Amino acid sequence: MSDLFLPVILGTARPGRRSQRIAHAIVDMLERRGITTELIDVADVPLTATGRAAPSLERYRETAAAADGFVIVAPEYNHGYPGELKLLLDSEFAAYSRKPVGIVSVSSGLMGGARMAEQLKAVTTALRMIPVSPAVHVGRAAEALDDRGAFASSSLADVAERMLDELEWYAASLRTARTAA
Amino acid sequence: MSDLFLPVILGTARPGRRSQRIAHAIVDMLERRGITTELIDVADVPLTATGRAAPSLERYRETAAAADGFVIVAPEYNHGYPGELKLLLDSEFAAYSRKPVGIVSVSSGLMGGARMAEQLKAVTTALRMIPVSPAVHVGRAAEALDDRGAFASSSLADVAERMLDELEWYAASLRTARTAA
Amino acid sequence: MSDLFLPVILGTARPGRRSQRIAHAIVDMLERRGITTELIDVADVPLTATGRAAPSLERYRETAAAADGFVIVAPEYNHGYPGELKLLLDSEFAAYSRKPVGIVSVSSGLMGGARMAEQLKAVTTALRMIPVSPAVHVGRAAEALDDRGAFASSSLADVAERMLDELEWYAASLRTARTAA
Amino acid sequence: MSDLFLPVILGTARPGRRSQRIAHAIVDMLERRGITTELIDVADVPLTATGRAAPSLERYRETAAAADGFVIVAPEYNHGYPGELKLLLDSEFAAYSRKPVGIVSVSSGLMGGARMAEQLKAVTTALRMIPVSPAVHVGRAAEALDDRGAFASSSLADVAERMLDELEWYAASLRTARTAA
Repeated sequence: MSDLFLPVILGTARPGRRSQRIAHAIVDMLERRGITTELIDVADVPLTATGRAAPSLERYRETAAAADGFVIVAPEYNHGYPGELKLLLDSEFAAYSRKPVGIVSVSSGLMGGARMAEQLKAVTTALRMIPVSPAVHVGRAAEALDDRGAFASSSLADVAERMLDELEWYAASLRTARTAA
Repeated sequence: MSDLFLPVILGTARPGRRSQRIAHAIVDMLERRGITTELIDVADVPLTATGRAAPSLERYRETAAAADGFVIVAPEYNHGYPGELKLLLDSEFAAYSRKPVGIVSVSSGLMGGARMAEQLKAVTTALRMIPVSPAVHVGRAAEALDDRGAFASSSLADVAERMLDELEWYAASLRTARTAA
Repeated sequence: MSDLFLPVILGTARPGRRSQRIAHAIVDMLERRGITTELIDVADVPLTATGRAAPSLERYRETAAAADGFVIVAPEYNHGYPGELKLLLDSEFAAYSRKPVGIVSVSSGLMGGARMAEQLKAVTTALRMIPVSPAVHVGRAAEALDDRGAFASSSLADVAERMLDELEWYAASLRTARTAA
Repeated sequence: MSDLFLPVILGTARPGRRSQRIAHAIVDMLERRGITTELIDVADVPLTATGRAAPSLERYRETAAAADGFVIVAPEYNHGYPGELKLLLDSEFAAYSRKPVGIVSVSSGLMGGARMAEQLKAVTTALRMIPVSPAVHVGRAAEALDDRGAFASSSLADVAERMLDELEWYAASLRTARTAA
């Protein structure tokens, strides 16, 4: 059993957000792998401006510092990432360095948020994270999960498992290397 | 004298934001051209989540609907756009269509926010705006303006004028075409 | 009947390229609108380096200069555009200015090349073209066309028509404005 | 002394290319670190189409397979990467996986190719490479090197050293992890 800690960031606070159930599906998959995780809900860290303090930020920073890597689950809005997600990510810097990040993009249409994922890769790279391949693109989000809250499509489930394989490999490899340095 | 209305969006609410003075410099340049403008300050429309109502949104929507085009002045944070700017842009859709947008990116370093400008072009295109070339990249923002609040570098001033030339040309051309349609 | 000239650039020379039939489908749609068009096949302008002369470049430049706008049909290779397409686009500059471009991205998978389309929007904007919305993303390219070579999916056909509507609107509006200037 | 092998890809074959001397400066820096390297010149692998065979490709594939990581030195053309570089990168896939890549972008203007670097990060991530931070952006390329062929600006030299530090750290860490797996 792994002792990695890989929290999942839910990157939208939009009323009716479909990404919430997708984020829970990822949390379930991580737990089935025996990996410690928790859901970081951007709605719990309400920010209106970059660089402003908020009481709940302290907890976010502690969680990010303790993490060995991250999953970000977020929808695509107008080909970009949600503003509330960017406000959260920009509130921290040092805690991200040399840690892998798996991106799960969500959309109601067919594209599955692939453009948002590319923008988020640029941002997470600037934050010194390592975006792993493949990213997971969840299209038709309303129908993506079955009754148990798992991915209904086996091909989507496969991609998500491969993403988590890579995330786990990088998280373990880079933690070893960070500790040795 | 033109009767175009081209508001300037200041896209950061960060304490100590240097983009504010740059935005005023653009407002001055527009007014010297005889163009009606106003500053839309993202700090006046505080939002914590995509898709949530806010009292000041109504006024933003009316201004956007009346506009013949836009200038967005915003800093680059970790290679992306400020979250508060994205929250504002995502709060509207129909009012942007077939209108040009000039992008002024700001950074404290040399790059001048060129990466943020590319991400913003993708977003504004999704919003059906027309990003004009050239974009204006203001590096070393602390030293970019002279005592009168104008661009200290003549080459930067030139680029800004060329951007405004294109913006004005597209704003006038597309308004004529929208009206004829 | 319109007198616009809107050539279609086929942006891959890969053996077995599926984009070729998609490009022909777009040519057919333009002709049914009464618009003059022609297929510019990147395979006919073989280049191995940016900035080198080639006999067939002269004809490309003349066609580009005569065009009122463009459609680019190209596959996504590793989230980017084909090298041969970039070599062709970079061989010209002045002929593109203030002309609209419609992007049709092609892929064998579900995503339909949406990431390539975003990169191509950045490039075409730098070339002073106007990328119109919506872009058209053709996934599962092998099954995208029916026996007559038209889009098999009515929703994809609808998106393509809307793209061509926008392209035509911009091509006509901007030509009028360019001529008046 | 390290036994890493980190080849440098020169990503333009344009006549008069300024990136060539920059690539040699990086080769020198690697050699001074005691790292085995070699210059892969895209001009030596002339390709006109994605997916076509070329005699010199075999050697490129062998070098890529032997590499523990890469540096790519390339100019920005119209906000994107050179077509000849993309043709080369797309000619291989498996040899890149889980290896770091340092990006050195070059431009004649101030921006230093930062937009090209972002597009290249998206492509190299799709190829399963790990783009390291910081990237190096060489603006005003004509004046970037001193008489000895080293970076004239100490701040640019510092960024390049920091990039190589990260590249070396990832190359060593990931090789250990790949071997253990």
